[in-house]
Amino acid sequence: MAGKRVDLNADMGESFGPWRMGNDEALLDIVTSANIACGFHAGDPDHMARTMRLAVEKGVGIGAHPGFDDLKDFGRRRMALPHDRLASLVAYQLGAAQAIARLVGGEVRHLKLHGALANMCAEDEAMARACYEAALKVAPDIIIMTIAATAQERAATALGARRAGEIFADRAYNDDATLVDRSQPGAMIHDPEEAARRMVAMAKEGAIITESGKRIPTRIDTICLHGDGPTAVEIARAVRSALEAAGIEVRAFDGER
Amino acid sequence: MAGKRVDLNADMGESFGPWRMGNDEALLDIVTSANIACGFHAGDPDHMARTMRLAVEKGVGIGAHPGFDDLKDFGRRRMALPHDRLASLVAYQLGAAQAIARLVGGEVRHLKLHGALANMCAEDEAMARACYEAALKVAPDIIIMTIAATAQERAATALGARRAGEIFADRAYNDDATLVDRSQPGAMIHDPEEAARRMVAMAKEGAIITESGKRIPTRIDTICLHGDGPTAVEIARAVRSALEAAGIEVRAFDGER
Amino acid sequence: MAGKRVDLNADMGESFGPWRMGNDEALLDIVTSANIACGFHAGDPDHMARTMRLAVEKGVGIGAHPGFDDLKDFGRRRMALPHDRLASLVAYQLGAAQAIARLVGGEVRHLKLHGALANMCAEDEAMARACYEAALKVAPDIIIMTIAATAQERAATALGARRAGEIFADRAYNDDATLVDRSQPGAMIHDPEEAARRMVAMAKEGAIITESGKRIPTRIDTICLHGDGPTAVEIARAVRSALEAAGIEVRAFDGER
Amino acid sequence: MAGKRVDLNADMGESFGPWRMGNDEALLDIVTSANIACGFHAGDPDHMARTMRLAVEKGVGIGAHPGFDDLKDFGRRRMALPHDRLASLVAYQLGAAQAIARLVGGEVRHLKLHGALANMCAEDEAMARACYEAALKVAPDIIIMTIAATAQERAATALGARRAGEIFADRAYNDDATLVDRSQPGAMIHDPEEAARRMVAMAKEGAIITESGKRIPTRIDTICLHGDGPTAVEIARAVRSALEAAGIEVRAFDGER
Repeated sequence: MAGKRVDLNADMGESFGPWRMGNDEALLDIVTSANIACGFHAGDPDHMARTMRLAVEKGVGIGAHPGFDDLKDFGRRRMALPHDRLASLVAYQLGAAQAIARLVGGEVRHLKLHGALANMCAEDEAMARACYEAALKVAPDIIIMTIAATAQERAATALGARRAGEIFADRAYNDDATLVDRSQPGAMIHDPEEAARRMVAMAKEGAIITESGKRIPTRIDTICLHGDGPTAVEIARAVRSALEAAGIEVRAFDGER
Repeated sequence: MAGKRVDLNADMGESFGPWRMGNDEALLDIVTSANIACGFHAGDPDHMARTMRLAVEKGVGIGAHPGFDDLKDFGRRRMALPHDRLASLVAYQLGAAQAIARLVGGEVRHLKLHGALANMCAEDEAMARACYEAALKVAPDIIIMTIAATAQERAATALGARRAGEIFADRAYNDDATLVDRSQPGAMIHDPEEAARRMVAMAKEGAIITESGKRIPTRIDTICLHGDGPTAVEIARAVRSALEAAGIEVRAFDGER
Repeated sequence: MAGKRVDLNADMGESFGPWRMGNDEALLDIVTSANIACGFHAGDPDHMARTMRLAVEKGVGIGAHPGFDDLKDFGRRRMALPHDRLASLVAYQLGAAQAIARLVGGEVRHLKLHGALANMCAEDEAMARACYEAALKVAPDIIIMTIAATAQERAATALGARRAGEIFADRAYNDDATLVDRSQPGAMIHDPEEAARRMVAMAKEGAIITESGKRIPTRIDTICLHGDGPTAVEIARAVRSALEAAGIEVRAFDGER
Repeated sequence: MAGKRVDLNADMGESFGPWRMGNDEALLDIVTSANIACGFHAGDPDHMARTMRLAVEKGVGIGAHPGFDDLKDFGRRRMALPHDRLASLVAYQLGAAQAIARLVGGEVRHLKLHGALANMCAEDEAMARACYEAALKVAPDIIIMTIAATAQERAATALGARRAGEIFADRAYNDDATLVDRSQPGAMIHDPEEAARRMVAMAKEGAIITESGKRIPTRIDTICLHGDGPTAVEIARAVRSALEAAGIEVRAFDGER
């Protein structure tokens, strides 16, 4: 499998004021890219600075992770907003993240949408385009992390943006490349060994492997790991170890167009 | 008075969600620099975009105007924060403003602190330095608007930053260059003609003229006009007209170090 | 027309921190019931106290006016929330309003839902029931203001609650008693005389009169006036004068079950 | 020690949206009074309902625990507010708590100020009076929990309010009854056995016992336990066991005037 490589990413910086969330320190030893909450669905300027400083120290790539303006529901409730407001929303958070990154001696390399904003943009190409165009006006060379085989990917490709295609370590896939709904049995992969096995297979084949065994070829640049849940860090470690054991290099993406 | 010139600045973009504040459109026809609220004491991504778009159209210089995180008191209540939190606070808001400016085809040229944050930094050089150092890490060439003859000015000068010295059109000065307390009679100048006369005199002499008639020589690069109050726009117009009639060019500052 | 009477209500207390909204003082001389924002879509403890104090002085009935937790969109964006969260949302705001009313020597007599929360409850009886049941647990004798001939009315009636049926002074009606969509011509009544004429006719007949002239008999206890818009106070005055001239008493409702 | 009894209280309901804080379930098995955050420094309507529902089930007395409007600093930063705004602040939160309590079939019995608001009121009797007067207008029979031998106690006593005098299980006392500053060695009691021993001694003697061994006689109605920190629940259990072993009944206070 010479030449095979993949990035590992996780959401971070999700603490807020006095409240803690996640295992940023542990995850930063495993991942190669960190998606940092920007203060709208989670995070605040102080937690952003703290997490980004750690990322710089550990050589992990920094990403802005903007979400809807909704602390109480963590950006997970869908909101219908006109495109010009989506543009302001994404630009504001991206700019804030860039500034905090510079403050701590780093730089924002990538952008990943969060929660309901991400899900809506995975379904609605025009909405994804509104968000990404705004980001590209702010940072023309930013790498856009796009959920593989969705409207996110189509929007970023149509814009000619640098991008990184993403699959999920702990989620099962339907035959149309969408995620199996969380209400279904088997939707979530809780076993570290199973998650690791699946990721090695998909990375090697360059394809999403669905529940039925179907292969959907797609560019896989990065694997999303989760930071919460009882086995999250364990899954993250197992995936990284298995990839390395299989000869797949774990390294930050380059963001080809 | 050949060669004399001065900038006129005003705070803007202070609407929030459904609430309107100020006369941005009228003021943007008078001033040469606009200080745009960044969402912490006033403003939000949409109002920032709207006001900055107008500023770009009218050729008015755009400034970031960060304040304390305090909508209910409009950033006017003093807060004791450690320096690293001041740094995050200023960097975050400046970065957000830069991104919105880029979104609308403009760029942030200057930084001006707001309200209690500004007042505290006018008294406390170390605090001003913490804020300005953060801003300079984010934007090394930014022009820092400093209240003339205060700790703000000393901090920016010590940092070797580009800066613009500021006096107030509608406030009387004490002999130590501080503002006469608002509780004192005569502290506020409400008469447009008087404000205009004073600004012409100070701009010509390159000095703050205090209530007692004392001259305090200082670099005057910009005059602060206010957008609220019944005579605000009238004062702004009167000051601009009087300056021009006196042969003083009204133009955005260059931000010499 | 002996015995005919009607209440006039308007939304108030919609200022927030430094931002002002509406004409509370002028409206409090016209209306007999005031719906006070409770801090979630507008208002804050200080503005609530100020507005309620005025209402007490002028003998205007005080109502709690809870909305979605959404300052930036003024409670006008729809949110899908489970019923137990709707219950907490309404109870919290109602309790806060009761306390502020007591603080200023008054008392909350009625409850009116705001914005998107009201619109959703006008369509969805189970949702309206979740909100009203919560309110009745907090205040069993509260009078619920319900939009006439909607799911709000059915929910309050099914609960056996005291209620006040409401029509709108400045909106045209469809034949199914819903409001003509704002995008349609004629949806909004801007002419004070026309609004006044319509309200007198509907109050006299005890029926909604639709655009096509159809009569929908319904209990009309209160007429909603608006506080914003250029002719709002004028419409309010015209409606009140016309009702009185027609021998219809303008007085706060009793809240029959 | 026939007749001796004391209440145990702890702060709770301090989760916010997706963020968890504290060990409410464990503490509710130990304490007899719960101080529930009201949404300004922590908590939200949903977490308030959840925690109060648990308190009702376990027969624990419910208290409103209002704080400054400051999520990011958890109500721990001092704010200078005029007395009328303190009144609105306290009334609003108390009313909200009363309503949520009724929603879940309980009732608010007591009020305890939080964080910086509590500390400022322990030093400033007029400020404490402003807060307590507001609370008593909302709920004339409410029991006010006052830090023993402070301005809080003097204010509540002067108002003739029902009250409960409070000491701290995990803090050392100076000879003037103030708490030893956290920066000093020995300020915090981390050892469960030591905390338990001290509380039994103070409860038996009806006096604060200072670091130097001085006795300050005071009415001790309740002991404050903390919910966070590694040994918090252990300390709580140890204090309760030791009190019971010493024949001191652990029961909610009556709130004598």
